[in-house]
Amino acid sequence: MVASVIKPTPNTDHDIKDLSLAPLGKQRIEWAGREMPVLRQVRDRFAQEKPLAGIRLAACCHVTTETANLAIALKVGGADAVLIASNPLSTQDDVAASLVVDQGIPVYAKKGEDAETYLRHVNIALDHRPNIIIDDGSDVVATLVKERQDQLSDIIGTTEETTTGIVRLRAMFKDGVLTFPAINVNDADTKHFFDNRYGTGQSTLDGIIRATNILLAGKNIVVVGYGWCGKGAALRARGMGANVIVTEVDPIRAIEAVMDGFRVMPMEQAAPLGDIFITVTGNKHVIRAEHFTVMKDGAMLANSGHFDIEIDLATLKDLSTSVTTVRNFTEEYRLPSGKSIIVLGEGRLINLAAAEGHPASVMDMSFANQALGCEYLIKQRGVLTPGLHPIPTEVDQEIARLKLQSMGIGIDTLTPEQVEYMNSWTSGT
Amino acid sequence: MVASVIKPTPNTDHDIKDLSLAPLGKQRIEWAGREMPVLRQVRDRFAQEKPLAGIRLAACCHVTTETANLAIALKVGGADAVLIASNPLSTQDDVAASLVVDQGIPVYAKKGEDAETYLRHVNIALDHRPNIIIDDGSDVVATLVKERQDQLSDIIGTTEETTTGIVRLRAMFKDGVLTFPAINVNDADTKHFFDNRYGTGQSTLDGIIRATNILLAGKNIVVVGYGWCGKGAALRARGMGANVIVTEVDPIRAIEAVMDGFRVMPMEQAAPLGDIFITVTGNKHVIRAEHFTVMKDGAMLANSGHFDIEIDLATLKDLSTSVTTVRNFTEEYRLPSGKSIIVLGEGRLINLAAAEGHPASVMDMSFANQALGCEYLIKQRGVLTPGLHPIPTEVDQEIARLKLQSMGIGIDTLTPEQVEYMNSWTSGT
Amino acid sequence: MVASVIKPTPNTDHDIKDLSLAPLGKQRIEWAGREMPVLRQVRDRFAQEKPLAGIRLAACCHVTTETANLAIALKVGGADAVLIASNPLSTQDDVAASLVVDQGIPVYAKKGEDAETYLRHVNIALDHRPNIIIDDGSDVVATLVKERQDQLSDIIGTTEETTTGIVRLRAMFKDGVLTFPAINVNDADTKHFFDNRYGTGQSTLDGIIRATNILLAGKNIVVVGYGWCGKGAALRARGMGANVIVTEVDPIRAIEAVMDGFRVMPMEQAAPLGDIFITVTGNKHVIRAEHFTVMKDGAMLANSGHFDIEIDLATLKDLSTSVTTVRNFTEEYRLPSGKSIIVLGEGRLINLAAAEGHPASVMDMSFANQALGCEYLIKQRGVLTPGLHPIPTEVDQEIARLKLQSMGIGIDTLTPEQVEYMNSWTSGT
Amino acid sequence: MVASVIKPTPNTDHDIKDLSLAPLGKQRIEWAGREMPVLRQVRDRFAQEKPLAGIRLAACCHVTTETANLAIALKVGGADAVLIASNPLSTQDDVAASLVVDQGIPVYAKKGEDAETYLRHVNIALDHRPNIIIDDGSDVVATLVKERQDQLSDIIGTTEETTTGIVRLRAMFKDGVLTFPAINVNDADTKHFFDNRYGTGQSTLDGIIRATNILLAGKNIVVVGYGWCGKGAALRARGMGANVIVTEVDPIRAIEAVMDGFRVMPMEQAAPLGDIFITVTGNKHVIRAEHFTVMKDGAMLANSGHFDIEIDLATLKDLSTSVTTVRNFTEEYRLPSGKSIIVLGEGRLINLAAAEGHPASVMDMSFANQALGCEYLIKQRGVLTPGLHPIPTEVDQEIARLKLQSMGIGIDTLTPEQVEYMNSWTSGT
Repeated sequence: MVASVIKPTPNTDHDIKDLSLAPLGKQRIEWAGREMPVLRQVRDRFAQEKPLAGIRLAACCHVTTETANLAIALKVGGADAVLIASNPLSTQDDVAASLVVDQGIPVYAKKGEDAETYLRHVNIALDHRPNIIIDDGSDVVATLVKERQDQLSDIIGTTEETTTGIVRLRAMFKDGVLTFPAINVNDADTKHFFDNRYGTGQSTLDGIIRATNILLAGKNIVVVGYGWCGKGAALRARGMGANVIVTEVDPIRAIEAVMDGFRVMPMEQAAPLGDIFITVTGNKHVIRAEHFTVMKDGAMLANSGHFDIEIDLATLKDLSTSVTTVRNFTEEYRLPSGKSIIVLGEGRLINLAAAEGHPASVMDMSFANQALGCEYLIKQRGVLTPGLHPIPTEVDQEIARLKLQSMGIGIDTLTPEQVEYMNSWTSGT
Repeated sequence: MVASVIKPTPNTDHDIKDLSLAPLGKQRIEWAGREMPVLRQVRDRFAQEKPLAGIRLAACCHVTTETANLAIALKVGGADAVLIASNPLSTQDDVAASLVVDQGIPVYAKKGEDAETYLRHVNIALDHRPNIIIDDGSDVVATLVKERQDQLSDIIGTTEETTTGIVRLRAMFKDGVLTFPAINVNDADTKHFFDNRYGTGQSTLDGIIRATNILLAGKNIVVVGYGWCGKGAALRARGMGANVIVTEVDPIRAIEAVMDGFRVMPMEQAAPLGDIFITVTGNKHVIRAEHFTVMKDGAMLANSGHFDIEIDLATLKDLSTSVTTVRNFTEEYRLPSGKSIIVLGEGRLINLAAAEGHPASVMDMSFANQALGCEYLIKQRGVLTPGLHPIPTEVDQEIARLKLQSMGIGIDTLTPEQVEYMNSWTSGT
Repeated sequence: MVASVIKPTPNTDHDIKDLSLAPLGKQRIEWAGREMPVLRQVRDRFAQEKPLAGIRLAACCHVTTETANLAIALKVGGADAVLIASNPLSTQDDVAASLVVDQGIPVYAKKGEDAETYLRHVNIALDHRPNIIIDDGSDVVATLVKERQDQLSDIIGTTEETTTGIVRLRAMFKDGVLTFPAINVNDADTKHFFDNRYGTGQSTLDGIIRATNILLAGKNIVVVGYGWCGKGAALRARGMGANVIVTEVDPIRAIEAVMDGFRVMPMEQAAPLGDIFITVTGNKHVIRAEHFTVMKDGAMLANSGHFDIEIDLATLKDLSTSVTTVRNFTEEYRLPSGKSIIVLGEGRLINLAAAEGHPASVMDMSFANQALGCEYLIKQRGVLTPGLHPIPTEVDQEIARLKLQSMGIGIDTLTPEQVEYMNSWTSGT
Repeated sequence: MVASVIKPTPNTDHDIKDLSLAPLGKQRIEWAGREMPVLRQVRDRFAQEKPLAGIRLAACCHVTTETANLAIALKVGGADAVLIASNPLSTQDDVAASLVVDQGIPVYAKKGEDAETYLRHVNIALDHRPNIIIDDGSDVVATLVKERQDQLSDIIGTTEETTTGIVRLRAMFKDGVLTFPAINVNDADTKHFFDNRYGTGQSTLDGIIRATNILLAGKNIVVVGYGWCGKGAALRARGMGANVIVTEVDPIRAIEAVMDGFRVMPMEQAAPLGDIFITVTGNKHVIRAEHFTVMKDGAMLANSGHFDIEIDLATLKDLSTSVTTVRNFTEEYRLPSGKSIIVLGEGRLINLAAAEGHPASVMDMSFANQALGCEYLIKQRGVLTPGLHPIPTEVDQEIARLKLQSMGIGIDTLTPEQVEYMNSWTSGT
């Protein structure tokens, strides 16, 4: 259980919507905590060992009940942490309130905040002069290396858990501006297997169903991109009875999708067939003017990639004679032809915009990776070179082991004879 | 089409069962060739460019129709190649005959050959003084480094396509005896995704069904190991209506199996539940005495790992009061309790023992990797260091591209704007 | 599009929550109407032909956007219809408002109405002296035959679309009190295949996810009952990565579940294994005291059967030391052992309590059956005998045909030669 | 175990291929018997009660190991039975031999027998002057009513287990020539659910794989007909990674296929897309000239319907410039365009032609229905009217119950309170 003292007028600094939402937030944070047994065990150890003592930490994340459990674990571990929202639509205002009121963690996040506010929050995070940045899409790091070179000496490192952020960090490193270590949480097996595949898979469909209440069975669902997120979305869409079409640019992923039983084709062929489109590429404008014009009347577009640039909405708006909100998170763009295209969640991450983001049990492992990634940065300070580093395998395996334990599932262990066999090359013949 | 001149008394050296089987072998090799469009395109280019000219090559493979198409491509590419069987049960005698008679390729392989014969064939392969060894389980390489150090100077490198072989090569490298480059074909995406997962998945079940003709729907099938082969077997077993239980030693793979909807438990719990067991671990004695004794009456055991050591058959035999062949490839071990255990294909690779090995369209990509791996060894002669090397990504992607093309499937290409976006880290914010 | 004239103080009689919700209701009714092309075509024909002219009709249904489209079609067809809620939790107050304000249809339904109010509404429906009763669970019909025998002469017949209602009508017929025809809409193929299986399948999971936001992958989900609804729930739960256990009382359904790859066992064995339980039996107390006491801590119970009696909640409450609401539609019952059991949606239909009921495209066919069932009752007045009658096959097929058309899907037609073959018995030999 | 005395020159009348195959047949019959626990229990009771004593019985079935177990049960039950083959390709000559040699049952069946021989065998069966005919496709019954009206007085009834046969019996009844009762075994739940769906599903793919050894993953498989057999084939094909297209003439089945996630289209659209076609309609010429001409080069055609008329092979042959056998059961028809079409198993039931028919555990329930259907005919002699009659529900449920028992699976039973609730209509309100 999360400890709590109600402080109606907290002296914790913040920029949030409504402090009075704290009780609801607290209840929901605790509910999520039930499904996060791995992070709970990490937090319990952190409470003993205080591995983050003396560390200033800035976290830029979706401000959800799961993130709250991470933030609490970091604080319990000794960190002086501030939290800003990585996405204007995903902030849960009650959670922000509870973190400020019940946990004394400074939070700067309001659901629906505009771009200017977001930028102000990024700068508040950097004003905190962090030693460690937990980033989500690499915006804080990008601002740091562009505008705050003077703070580079403060930095121990960063952790990053999105594909988008990893792509950007790689580009920064290539350009010579990433001068500190970055822990690639995204590629931890216990992160991308579960978060990207099972988490995104379920929550993307959840977002689409909450936004529209349509039946997925019998629909043609076009999944754009067959990375881990795309695999998850495609698998679950089929699991709900949809007929799934995959589009890709990578031939290996494309043939994998074929072998998994999906239809694969270029987007120009898929555009007129799809009833629902889900973009999960990490790239921009993967659905664009040439595709809008050939779509069915009533085709629905949803994005589950990190940024809201996968669908070229600006152009869609230009092409349209009207835009009408027909349900929450559901806007109808009317084209001159009379056909309409339905955009869900304004093209932002649909699972966060229209649903509640990933289920807690998924974020459990991702955020255990984040917390342990921070600890690793500190322990390896001075040892880790600038650039991207994977989560150590032992950490990854330990997280999986804790998760299995919490589910009451045992596995086998190698016998001594088997260990010897695996290390030998002479006994086969 | 494969060119052919019938030579009833060939002057090609060989040790095979029956030359008169050549016409059937030829027909079947051509049938497999239809489903191997990628290898066909490689062969056509090799015919032009002769990249293997002057190279002595020893290949140790399952002597199947698909391998025959590889052998033909290698010869067409200029190689002076000999072929031996990597497994005593998998040899297709008609294929061996056709390679000798129709293609003039020396082959040493007889279905059911004993261990002594196998060893003799390994030595004949080494007597060929190969520059390149295409190995399957690393037996030829292991014999070379143990007994033929004088030939090490001939060696350009080896290619290896089994998990078992990779494990052994890694151990050899650790022990300092692997002094030449080894191309890890097994870990090419276009190999392990398709061969290990989709190939093993289908052909393992095919072997079990041919051996037993039992219905899989409603059966408890225990898949031992959740690597690529295990994933394939589990997926296809579920696809046939079985209820699948997975056992593992790796916690990350174990939790992945859980998330995929399978039951996961230690073998001691699974043993009394299973109707059919499939071993795919690359390790030894994963099913052993303590498990046999608690199994259901009539439980069936099949192996799809490379070596026939995954099930401890010697001990099972010791425990049994009788062993009876009840169908082809199906032996009943009667225990003193009166219960019986059914062993399929003598615990050897069930897909090769009781069925026809992987379908050609799967081996198409694996063998294209083998052929291009040999070419790469030659091109990079002197550049590649000793030890294991991956297949280059470009080769992997090219194979996938050719495969998609052959299926008439197009994919998207990045727009210039997208390429720029993927290389940029400044535009996100 | 649905015609609309805003009447702020309507002279239509009603008992609903808030007339000012009408604009939102209207928008949502139209959204649902997009996904109901079959009912739209029926409505268009009804507008021409007025087959229900002069008929007094009482409909007892879940007051949702989809029902609204049915009610509008009935009114357009000439019926003098009143609508009451069949379930206190499922009423959508905005929809009720729009039907009164925009359509002039008398509605008696308030979300959360108590049992007394419900009974009053049933009597208002009967005060309307209906010729036709569209019932949902047979409460209106049961009240009629028990308390209003004087109105029996008014009755042309009833249509019923739930399993529960059919069971009750069958019992009434056996007891000799059902003296008029009842159309069994529930057993129309285009009803139970789609509504019970695909509709309940998706919407049950939707309700559970909205109530809890938990990840289904890797969870043990126990589906209680393997009728059409249970098949749907089991199929979709597996599609989301859950490991599904089925309990049944019917051996044929049980073995079907086994063959579909599910584990089947008695509830006493399933109770300690399940993470989530879904009841869909149409029977009472299928989860009861003996099961509660052996469940895991945190086990979740949801019902998708018509009545809220499948879980013995009264006993659970008696056993519990406390009951706490931990999220909307999510109550935690704490047992003296310290373990807790989570009950979703108060044990009422979870898809209606916590989500939005069936998607419109499913109800499209069910409600087309209802509308055409009413028309059939009128056309066959005096011909149909008392008791249950199926929907005519031609109606069923016509609905399927219209649905396929609306999806742009064509099918084959028999050639004259094939028709002849199907009618012949001499040509086989 | 089946009792056995080797009689090298039996005095049992027969027309089979080779008596010396009896030992192999006996072994295989016993192997199948292991998977037929329900039929075994029926046989054991028949041995006690002799319900078929004095009955002359003619059985026309696929002469397989499973049928042998049925024949033995019938003989053990007292019947004076003869057996003929219902299909020229499906006869297992070793089984025929064992029935004659070991069981003393007259058998008239040779694998590959021509039409004339088949007709002769039908007449031998009728010369036996049967009281009961177990038919498979209704050929014996059709011959009887056409040519042997004098024997009608001998007849107690017939049992029929194919869709094709039921269609023909229905037509005979309509024409007034079916003057005795016919038990519709095909529509027993424990028959069509399992035999048609799970049996045909697995064994059809088994036949295709054995005939071709091709990989199904990634292939477009067109399933022609979505009855129980088609549902099974489609489900299993998807389970093996294929992309499945369904064609249908019935709109209800078509929309069910859509909702199950398959593509549905007319055959003229499917023909150019399919890699493999499977016909399971019970109708004739469902693939014909107009389809052949637009197929892909190398498209494969297989039939799993009862008769070999679903593919119009005569026309295909006329269109072709050559027909070549490229593997066992695999013929290549070369069209003038240069493209070829591959026909598997000569268009006969592929699971019987190229594989071993249904697995024993499936036929277990079908044949228990046959045996109990015969017993029912005798018990109800004089009571049953002419025409088709279903298997009584109690028989169906008893078979399911025995099957579950044999698998060690328990199910729930209704509590007295639940029984009362199901019979009541007053407690709902």
